[in-house]
Amino acid sequence: MEIIELDLGADSYPIYIGHGILVDGELLRSHIRSSQVFIVSNETVGPLYRQRVVDSLAGFQVDSVDLPDGEAFKNLETLNRIFTSLLEKKHNRSSTLIAIGGGVVGDTAGFAAACYQRGIDLIQIPTSLLSQVDASVGGKTAVNHSLGKNMIGAFYQPKCVIVDIETLNTLPRREFVAGLAEVIKHGVIRDLQFFQWLETNLDPVLNLEMDSLSYLVKRNCQIKAEVVCADEKERGIRALLNLGHTFGHAVETAMGYGNWLHGEAVAAGMVMAADLSARMGRLPGQECRRVKNLVAKAGLPVSPPAEIEAPRYQELMQVDKKAVDGTVRFVLLDAIGTASLVDNVDEELLLQTLAAGTALCEV
Amino acid sequence: MEIIELDLGADSYPIYIGHGILVDGELLRSHIRSSQVFIVSNETVGPLYRQRVVDSLAGFQVDSVDLPDGEAFKNLETLNRIFTSLLEKKHNRSSTLIAIGGGVVGDTAGFAAACYQRGIDLIQIPTSLLSQVDASVGGKTAVNHSLGKNMIGAFYQPKCVIVDIETLNTLPRREFVAGLAEVIKHGVIRDLQFFQWLETNLDPVLNLEMDSLSYLVKRNCQIKAEVVCADEKERGIRALLNLGHTFGHAVETAMGYGNWLHGEAVAAGMVMAADLSARMGRLPGQECRRVKNLVAKAGLPVSPPAEIEAPRYQELMQVDKKAVDGTVRFVLLDAIGTASLVDNVDEELLLQTLAAGTALCEV
Repeated sequence: MEIIELDLGADSYPIYIGHGILVDGELLRSHIRSSQVFIVSNETVGPLYRQRVVDSLAGFQVDSVDLPDGEAFKNLETLNRIFTSLLEKKHNRSSTLIAIGGGVVGDTAGFAAACYQRGIDLIQIPTSLLSQVDASVGGKTAVNHSLGKNMIGAFYQPKCVIVDIETLNTLPRREFVAGLAEVIKHGVIRDLQFFQWLETNLDPVLNLEMDSLSYLVKRNCQIKAEVVCADEKERGIRALLNLGHTFGHAVETAMGYGNWLHGEAVAAGMVMAADLSARMGRLPGQECRRVKNLVAKAGLPVSPPAEIEAPRYQELMQVDKKAVDGTVRFVLLDAIGTASLVDNVDEELLLQTLAAGTALCEV
Repeated sequence: MEIIELDLGADSYPIYIGHGILVDGELLRSHIRSSQVFIVSNETVGPLYRQRVVDSLAGFQVDSVDLPDGEAFKNLETLNRIFTSLLEKKHNRSSTLIAIGGGVVGDTAGFAAACYQRGIDLIQIPTSLLSQVDASVGGKTAVNHSLGKNMIGAFYQPKCVIVDIETLNTLPRREFVAGLAEVIKHGVIRDLQFFQWLETNLDPVLNLEMDSLSYLVKRNCQIKAEVVCADEKERGIRALLNLGHTFGHAVETAMGYGNWLHGEAVAAGMVMAADLSARMGRLPGQECRRVKNLVAKAGLPVSPPAEIEAPRYQELMQVDKKAVDGTVRFVLLDAIGTASLVDNVDEELLLQTLAAGTALCEV
């Protein structure tokens, strides 16, 4: 088992990464401080893993709720279902909420833990690649609003994160591939060497070879942890983790939550950001195409859906959380491994990127 | 103008107390960091004060929403109205939310600021006595759930609090009196001298004499600030501020939010807590009656509604936020000015208090 420590002062916590550690009751219990535990999962993941966790908590009051599966249910109504169940079962402020599932479960349950009685303990057990390498590290929690993704939320750190890589064996292929978008993103913004490793090792990763996956998950958690520890509340460099997300969130919202998976939208958004970086003369055309090629090789989309037109993008991007005084800020690339936050993007070049479609990165 | 500084490390902020400072645009603008401002008020208070604040913000993008008036609307649906309006007007993460109103507006708007885009700047302009002496100091924000009061919320500190005592002139009498419950509570738990001052000076206070009110508001903010600075997240002595609230929240929830004002329920709850303290032999009967007498003199209820029976209390009190592992904890009195958190309350004595009705404190 590997342990990555997130150093966030009083909110510090460990990320445990290993094989089969989901059923390590001792590890789990060492982070629970009362006899009340509430498990949040979803209708797909819950039946696979909940009972194993329950079995390791003999003697505790364990209650649970399975949320409907999918981004479309990451909203205030689902959140309220969690609160109602917590109250019906009389969970109090010393209770511990355990989230078992992918990014949607982690974001929703994490925000529920942040708000219930003004904050109860939270343990994240991420079971998707996306949540293992990204969503469960760093304490961002949120639900969606019909007018914008992740618009209602909190920064709320868990007591620990337990990453059991074996859960990737049950992950649907499409979701596994979607998770690779954030993996590629971490290389692109911060680690050329890891990007190169991905270019070389994508086949064993796609074949779920455990050694490659272990390295991949660990390296990604490290990259994310470095950034989060440097800037927990996203006042500076943490914003670079949003590469591809300004475009990507617009795609997700425009297409209806859940129709494009988050990772798929981020993949297309990352290619758009690379394209815009090249048009602005920041990124050499060759590196731009290298980003697009790796995204394509992973089996991810390299262009956004054709039906979203420029005005709709611009409307949706204006409420992006990085915007200041109405000016949209983009994460752009200076090289593979080096990104910047840019707020003076030329409107004309942006329109070219929005119109490029399948010709993205052929700058 | 008086200034009380809340020392909460990176979250420190000033409370300004004065006459007519609501229209001090310079003071207000010094705490706003972008050009976007969003004012949340209610249908009663908004028409009285919103325009004065807007006038002092020439050149800013100022949007606003008036919530329906009353505790019954302090819920997730009202919260979502605020989010929808913020998103429709394209407020981003650097926007400032200004709450103008009583405790319900402050709690709801404060929680909206805590969650919108994971937290935007907040300025509290409390206009009721209750919110001036209590709700706006200390960063507790929340909305109600149908199964429990203030069950969904956050600790979220404002950038500043602006207390304009002149707003008390427009406050309905019933609400002014309700605010005195928290005032009396502050004396009872922590400051015998202030309790004595209240016994002597209640008449000028009830006559809205500004000198008395100024002293009262300032001294209350100081008491609350001392407690909050010692224990921001309520892991210890801050819980003492909940004197009367375990009973009081049960009364509010049982009677339907808004039928008993929060202060009225706290007043009855405080008399119940004094009664229980006396039954347990902690508080002399004479001091117990002194608490009841001051509550009565202020025009506040000294007994709970007769229709709530013991089982209903016990059910509602089990989800109290101070409960640990199913055991309800009470704030009890050792003397006027000295309170303790007690978790081994004798069931039989508790039932006597719940059944005492108008004979409370005649122990």
